[in-house]
Amino acid sequence: MQRPYKDLTVNELLSVKAALEEEYKTMESKGLNLNMARGKPGFSQLALSMPMLDVINSESDMRTVLGNDTRNYGDLDGIGECRRLMANMMGVEKDNVVVCGNSSLNIMYDTVSRSMSHGVNGSTPWCKLDKVKFLCPVPGYDRHFKITEFFGIEMINIPLHLDGPDMDLVEQYVNNDPTVKGIWCVPKYSNPTGISYSDEVVRRFANLKPAAEDFRIFWDDAYCIHHLYDDIQDEVLCILDECEKAGNPDMVYIFASTSKISFPGSGVSAIASSLKNIDFIEAQMTIQTIGHDKINQLRHSRFFKDINGLKAHMKLHAELLRPKFEAVLNTLEAELGGLEIGSWVKPRGGYFISFDALPGCATDIVAKCKALGVVLTGAGATYPYGKDPLDSNIRIAPSFPTPEEMEAAAKAFVLCVKLASVEKILSEK
Amino acid sequence: MQRPYKDLTVNELLSVKAALEEEYKTMESKGLNLNMARGKPGFSQLALSMPMLDVINSESDMRTVLGNDTRNYGDLDGIGECRRLMANMMGVEKDNVVVCGNSSLNIMYDTVSRSMSHGVNGSTPWCKLDKVKFLCPVPGYDRHFKITEFFGIEMINIPLHLDGPDMDLVEQYVNNDPTVKGIWCVPKYSNPTGISYSDEVVRRFANLKPAAEDFRIFWDDAYCIHHLYDDIQDEVLCILDECEKAGNPDMVYIFASTSKISFPGSGVSAIASSLKNIDFIEAQMTIQTIGHDKINQLRHSRFFKDINGLKAHMKLHAELLRPKFEAVLNTLEAELGGLEIGSWVKPRGGYFISFDALPGCATDIVAKCKALGVVLTGAGATYPYGKDPLDSNIRIAPSFPTPEEMEAAAKAFVLCVKLASVEKILSEK
Repeated sequence: MQRPYKDLTVNELLSVKAALEEEYKTMESKGLNLNMARGKPGFSQLALSMPMLDVINSESDMRTVLGNDTRNYGDLDGIGECRRLMANMMGVEKDNVVVCGNSSLNIMYDTVSRSMSHGVNGSTPWCKLDKVKFLCPVPGYDRHFKITEFFGIEMINIPLHLDGPDMDLVEQYVNNDPTVKGIWCVPKYSNPTGISYSDEVVRRFANLKPAAEDFRIFWDDAYCIHHLYDDIQDEVLCILDECEKAGNPDMVYIFASTSKISFPGSGVSAIASSLKNIDFIEAQMTIQTIGHDKINQLRHSRFFKDINGLKAHMKLHAELLRPKFEAVLNTLEAELGGLEIGSWVKPRGGYFISFDALPGCATDIVAKCKALGVVLTGAGATYPYGKDPLDSNIRIAPSFPTPEEMEAAAKAFVLCVKLASVEKILSEK
Repeated sequence: MQRPYKDLTVNELLSVKAALEEEYKTMESKGLNLNMARGKPGFSQLALSMPMLDVINSESDMRTVLGNDTRNYGDLDGIGECRRLMANMMGVEKDNVVVCGNSSLNIMYDTVSRSMSHGVNGSTPWCKLDKVKFLCPVPGYDRHFKITEFFGIEMINIPLHLDGPDMDLVEQYVNNDPTVKGIWCVPKYSNPTGISYSDEVVRRFANLKPAAEDFRIFWDDAYCIHHLYDDIQDEVLCILDECEKAGNPDMVYIFASTSKISFPGSGVSAIASSLKNIDFIEAQMTIQTIGHDKINQLRHSRFFKDINGLKAHMKLHAELLRPKFEAVLNTLEAELGGLEIGSWVKPRGGYFISFDALPGCATDIVAKCKALGVVLTGAGATYPYGKDPLDSNIRIAPSFPTPEEMEAAAKAFVLCVKLASVEKILSEK
């Protein structure tokens, strides 16, 4: 076990620093060019879904199970078999699901946008209010925060623990402040920390007593079947059921997509909610579009067939992702274990590893990595307004590089963590 | 030549009416079931694009000309070859085009929605203004009017002549009233009248001097290459060029899609505008989505190859559509010619025939048709708020039925026109 940096003398630190700088120079000369910035599936993952492109061809029967022609207008809420597939994936009933276009982010944007312009089930449009606030468990997903920022919604940081957001704080805000209209959640294999919400957290969500009638939980189930392991898999209670039981049937919107199952950008996305909410959403959607891409819905339905097909496909993804995650985690453990200059959680699914550096070091680490040719998500990106108050959190996305590249990138990363930490500790001695 | 109904005596009208009622009863007993309500391509048209579904398969190289992987995130503004294809179709430069998802209506909705929430290139968001108005050439496209109605935008009817909207009136409103923020246009083969804007009309549009800096022309080029004939084809001046020449480079958004070229709901759509506008749009779009379906963009680009491929494909559509249009037009001419109970324009492209009945008769004709099993677009749909002040205009969509069905439907239609007109004239005698 290595000794914690904080226990070293100045002289010891200086000699560690000199050695690290030497190592950094060597690494610099390698001219790395690696990107761990975004949760992009790797090349071998994309290859898994190529057979899907043969499922629909010029000889195909293009009709749905109900006989509707997927090539023509119609079926605003999605074709039946695809609604069923997405419902099973999201753990809800088919009638609660609308299948949309290629992007669940787009549905989230539209949901916030609709609330701004038209309110929520008859409430005052949010754009007519002096103040609208969203709770943002942090660290979280930058693209969520960008949506609320874009609409001028004030964002409040809520600490994300190992079992979910700090529910004392969530209850305090939601149950007392009528300007709090929403909260962003990634309940399973959270982006970026990889944690999943406990049953107690889900039940506390469902049992909120919002001061605002138009408060909604934005439940981004982006990684609902995105396990890394066969034997240990996180399961999260169905928030729609729990809300129903708690007498809050309309309080949640669930979002999901196949972006990280079939193809990013060419998958299908869906929203699930109460029938009352779905009716309200469709009343707007019918103004916005005549319908989504039903041929692609048919392609997905026929390729995956059912939830078992989806799960089998996700096992193949897991086999490709696991070595990449483990390359990072093993390197973190081997190189940083005992140094007390950073902490991380070992995720059992999802797309990210979240690293908490010593306060004040994240920006420096990301910059040092960049100088070595290793691109990480910008420091601060996991916080609203891009501002991490401690300058500590760094999101690592291991999916895109190969396992070998990932190992090289992880080695560069830990080197930068060590160097930045030594410099930080020395500056404070 | 038949004698005009208005010149008949009451007795003559009563006997005409009795004969028509007899005919109506016979027709009723046939139990027709025909739909001319929406501009849906027919089955044989959909078959034309089936080979497109073989263009991309599991063996395909999925990279763009520039080498980007269409299966992964990226290329927010669309893949280069598809931007070029859509630009050539829209008669503009590639850099002025963003290729989006499957629906140009969705882009129009988003464009209005963005203007409501965020203004136009830095102007005050429309939702913060007391009054926002749009000019609506009538008769026009019901889904345009639904968008502006949904956002509480006041709509003002502008008569649509044979060469385009009444430009005296357009100039009077746009150049003097700063609350007028937009106008809906279908410049070529207008929905529903089929007319195309003259060069003079386009130039007068380009030379508007809007009282509102955030006034925009919503130029829905839905039928830009949708000719019915090889020899007589309407051409419309490029509004983007004309606006540029007139010193109004940012005044127009052009929309188009392949919905009626490849597959409705599974095509690609695009917006074209000045680079300044495109930058503003993309700044919002990057919040809304990571990107659109690039595999479908690749599919379209490889299938059609270039503008000549598109044009050749549209000739095949024209061959299928022409007999249906002619079935209606010939029946109208043969059965109604000389009766002075209705007027229509013979379109050279597009998807519709617009029929102007005697004032006060449209609702009755649509109802009578429905009772015979022939569904038309609801009377009034071609006007803002669904209110045709004269209750005169009826939109006929001949694309979906077969030519034989179309002939039967047209015969039912003229019968209902005659009967409703006789009743109307008698009631006023």
